Amino acid sequence: MAAPFLEECLAVLTRTPATLDAMLRDLPDAWTTATEGTGTWSPYDVIGHLIHGERTDWMPRLEIILEQGTSRPFDPFDREAQFRESAGKSLPTLLDEFSALRRDNLTRLRSLDLQPAQLELKGTHPGLGPVTVRQLIATWTAHDLAHILQVSRTMAKRYKQEVGPWAQYLSVMK
Amino acid sequence: MAAPFLEECLAVLTRTPATLDAMLRDLPDAWTTATEGTGTWSPYDVIGHLIHGERTDWMPRLEIILEQGTSRPFDPFDREAQFRESAGKSLPTLLDEFSALRRDNLTRLRSLDLQPAQLELKGTHPGLGPVTVRQLIATWTAHDLAHILQVSRTMAKRYKQEVGPWAQYLSVMK
Repeated sequence: MAAPFLEECLAVLTRTPATLDAMLRDLPDAWTTATEGTGTWSPYDVIGHLIHGERTDWMPRLEIILEQGTSRPFDPFDREAQFRESAGKSLPTLLDEFSALRRDNLTRLRSLDLQPAQLELKGTHPGLGPVTVRQLIATWTAHDLAHILQVSRTMAKRYKQEVGPWAQYLSVMK
Repeated sequence: MAAPFLEECLAVLTRTPATLDAMLRDLPDAWTTATEGTGTWSPYDVIGHLIHGERTDWMPRLEIILEQGTSRPFDPFDREAQFRESAGKSLPTLLDEFSALRRDNLTRLRSLDLQPAQLELKGTHPGLGPVTVRQLIATWTAHDLAHILQVSRTMAKRYKQEVGPWAQYLSVMK
């Protein structure tokens, strides 16, 4: 798996658990349970969502493409699963779980030793239609970054009032 | 310095160097030098900007307030300094520098043992007018988060084309 594309995806995917761990472990609950308002997710919720993705989204979908191609559409992803599955678990427990699942998934991904032609294989997304292995792995990567963005935005906005006049210099507060 | 406000700011400020280190150290240059277009900053540029803030912005301004109150406006902050000061330095060098400066600044901040009344002391921002110590420290905290947001957004957008049809599910790509 020497393709630069895969290596640069793996470089991000490998780092995400440590990034979120450095950011969130043992942080006061006021930060980790903050949301952007009703119906939005806290940093705690985001980690549960990432766990559910490791279990049911990225690698399972990749394996469906490799084994069944476009004939078997992916299962729809449950974007609310974390509210059920994380119940009663501490954030450090969730961070450990995410880290272990990601490590196992990347071990499996590397062991597939995907070749350039396999990156162009297609599957069927239940909502989006035809997608390639390459797009799936790129989305896994961008999805990590989008949730790091969401966590930092949610935390920053908590201080919208606290920063006083500086809010006008911080585009995140707008 | 037992005030919950200060402790929760310190909890974030302490974690930022490790967060950015986990995210960026030894990442391929294609990620760390990516920008959002002309005039925007790469992750590499952001670390240089954070370093300049540690040297000239947050603690120096706090000390101006404590020593001279509103009578001596802060020096304007140079938002382009990193393009001069980071020149020729590797990203790992910058990450080390940021981490050391932040550690020293937080040691100084803790040693001030700020009391609640001191958080309400005022200084004069050259563009914004009167600001308090509390607002300054809140902004230091939110500013870290805003730049973690910026780094993750810049990296995610690099894959706008790569993710194919999934772009419509990722608000960062819009």
